Amino acid sequence: MPRKSSFKVGSEVLLYADSETDADMLYFGKVFVPDPFIAFSCKGKRIAVVSQLEFSRVRKEGSFDEVLSMEETIFTARKNARKPLSYPASSIAFLGRKYKIKSFTVSNNFPCGPAFQLKELGVKLNVSEGMLLPEREFKSDQEAEFIKQGNAASSAGFKVVEKILKKAEIRRGYLYYEGRRLTSEYVQEAIAVACLRLGAVSANTIVAGGDQACDPHCRGNGPLKANELIIVDIFPRISSTGYHGDMTRTYLKGVASEAQKKLYATVLDAEQEAIREHRSGKSATLIYKSVVEKFVKAGYRTGKENGVPVGFIHGLGHGLGLAVHEPPRVNPSGTRLKTGQVITVEPGLYYPGLGGARVEDVVRVRRGEPELLSKHGYRWHIR
Amino acid sequence: MPRKSSFKVGSEVLLYADSETDADMLYFGKVFVPDPFIAFSCKGKRIAVVSQLEFSRVRKEGSFDEVLSMEETIFTARKNARKPLSYPASSIAFLGRKYKIKSFTVSNNFPCGPAFQLKELGVKLNVSEGMLLPEREFKSDQEAEFIKQGNAASSAGFKVVEKILKKAEIRRGYLYYEGRRLTSEYVQEAIAVACLRLGAVSANTIVAGGDQACDPHCRGNGPLKANELIIVDIFPRISSTGYHGDMTRTYLKGVASEAQKKLYATVLDAEQEAIREHRSGKSATLIYKSVVEKFVKAGYRTGKENGVPVGFIHGLGHGLGLAVHEPPRVNPSGTRLKTGQVITVEPGLYYPGLGGARVEDVVRVRRGEPELLSKHGYRWHIR
Repeated sequence: MPRKSSFKVGSEVLLYADSETDADMLYFGKVFVPDPFIAFSCKGKRIAVVSQLEFSRVRKEGSFDEVLSMEETIFTARKNARKPLSYPASSIAFLGRKYKIKSFTVSNNFPCGPAFQLKELGVKLNVSEGMLLPEREFKSDQEAEFIKQGNAASSAGFKVVEKILKKAEIRRGYLYYEGRRLTSEYVQEAIAVACLRLGAVSANTIVAGGDQACDPHCRGNGPLKANELIIVDIFPRISSTGYHGDMTRTYLKGVASEAQKKLYATVLDAEQEAIREHRSGKSATLIYKSVVEKFVKAGYRTGKENGVPVGFIHGLGHGLGLAVHEPPRVNPSGTRLKTGQVITVEPGLYYPGLGGARVEDVVRVRRGEPELLSKHGYRWHIR
Repeated sequence: MPRKSSFKVGSEVLLYADSETDADMLYFGKVFVPDPFIAFSCKGKRIAVVSQLEFSRVRKEGSFDEVLSMEETIFTARKNARKPLSYPASSIAFLGRKYKIKSFTVSNNFPCGPAFQLKELGVKLNVSEGMLLPEREFKSDQEAEFIKQGNAASSAGFKVVEKILKKAEIRRGYLYYEGRRLTSEYVQEAIAVACLRLGAVSANTIVAGGDQACDPHCRGNGPLKANELIIVDIFPRISSTGYHGDMTRTYLKGVASEAQKKLYATVLDAEQEAIREHRSGKSATLIYKSVVEKFVKAGYRTGKENGVPVGFIHGLGHGLGLAVHEPPRVNPSGTRLKTGQVITVEPGLYYPGLGGARVEDVVRVRRGEPELLSKHGYRWHIR
């Protein structure tokens, strides 16, 4: 969808990155290249400079209007060089002159080595405020579909977790599955296999029980216990497109205490309500704050206990797409939501001793109630 | 092992990156953090600045001598700010003054946004030539063990491929497995599952048959055919350590032509010979060139045919560790090998119409014959 860009007039976009880890580059060229390469815009065209190793593949599979040979570019740039500087700066400076580009706009993450060299060579660089390609924040129907595929992989993971927990036996407080003590690692592997079946790679999946879950980025390890809250956060990447899913469910196998039940119910309730608040024009800060208030009213304070942060200790959500974490953020310093943004909604509460609970879904913002891009039940208490 | 560092005297290392994708950061702090954070050295100590979300986990699991709270650092930096600049530059400048650091050395990849802001704030930055942490290039026994684990995952993948190809049936030139047409995607998934069983994530695995394999970075897709060379390149990452394996085998199911047999035998022979050449003090360029010569003598030329690069169209090898591609490179502009370097040895030949062949193992350089860090047979022709 058309959006005002942050580019300076007459300035062209410049990237130097691989497209397996750099979301901007993948968005710009629509082709996976494992090593960094030069790409830039010029009067509405997209141009890439790649090695002979990638040349025909990038021309065939990518969305570039022009693909130049890195080897030939280096050769010609060297002949025309004012100063002998290393690749890629020398080639970028040469291409800037060749294509009559007055200045380049780069992302905040553009590598500083080439950036300093380009300045030395007299090339004008603007660092973009916010995203280099601001249209990345607003997802098309096709992108929403890709994110749904990512979330379908997350959901397949939850199904496996539920099956395992249902079958698991409790012995002396620990969970046993197929005769062996059930561990976070075993469940993470089972989730990864389920994601693979749907064409997705799920790295760093969180399966964290008890106090481990109170560190929201702790992946979890070792034996899982009965009667403890277990947070499962799955953010797989669809291999063919690069888009992610990102969903969280919380489980408990065995007997839940009243305190655990109330914790979970409060988080789920906050999540369901917050989902409905995600509408175009709404202030992200206010949505975040209303969750905080809800928690406070229910008696859950956020702060430090014995030097450890407890309560609602992270943002409410973040943009999701080719990166797991991308703009916008729904937190104390959020902006107004806009149509097309895809955002996770993931309130959580964490109290060592009691455990952690988090529930996460994904919405696409529009005028009215948001479009839900994730789908999985909320069954949490497994006996 | 002690190595001369490239740091300027009195300059401290500065990083701003996440440690799931940035190998320097993972090496520096030995803990996975999904979002960028500040880390720096000071008089031999390693210091990190992380959000409350990561605080206790990084303190517990990481190798930092000191872990500071990002929130408190931002607050104090703001009070002491000379100019109002955004995070992380403002906090880095503040910490530089607080710890009396005269200049920071950053990697070539340090993000240019903060780099330009730091210069504005009068902070001295040196961009490191080569690796920011040059000791990363020289692997300890423990690191060699981690890389072996990665290669064991690759080997588990090859075992699955061999099993599938052995059981596969040939119908009208295509391969069928368990009643269905065998595809690159199916094999990639089976490999990924095998790697998971060994605690490794294998993304972007290459299973490319026929002419697809002639683009060495083409992952391969669609049905696999009989009587065609199939290149399988598996570079899994062990989830718990972040270290990679990287191995390649070439297969053919059905009847191999004399030309295919010769192509494969030439590549395997060159690989085995090149492995033995990887010794401390040897010129990487000469090792590379001797492979080129061997290929030329056997009648395989490298160049362009109908505008498409053919022959030995990539380097002979690259460093391997926390990154799949890292220094050193074994190619026309390589340097002398040094004890402790871990390097892939992967000659290949590619001719559209005939197909591609590549064989890849991993060595650790020492004085005499190198230590082989990969282990898997070379059975390629499956009837």
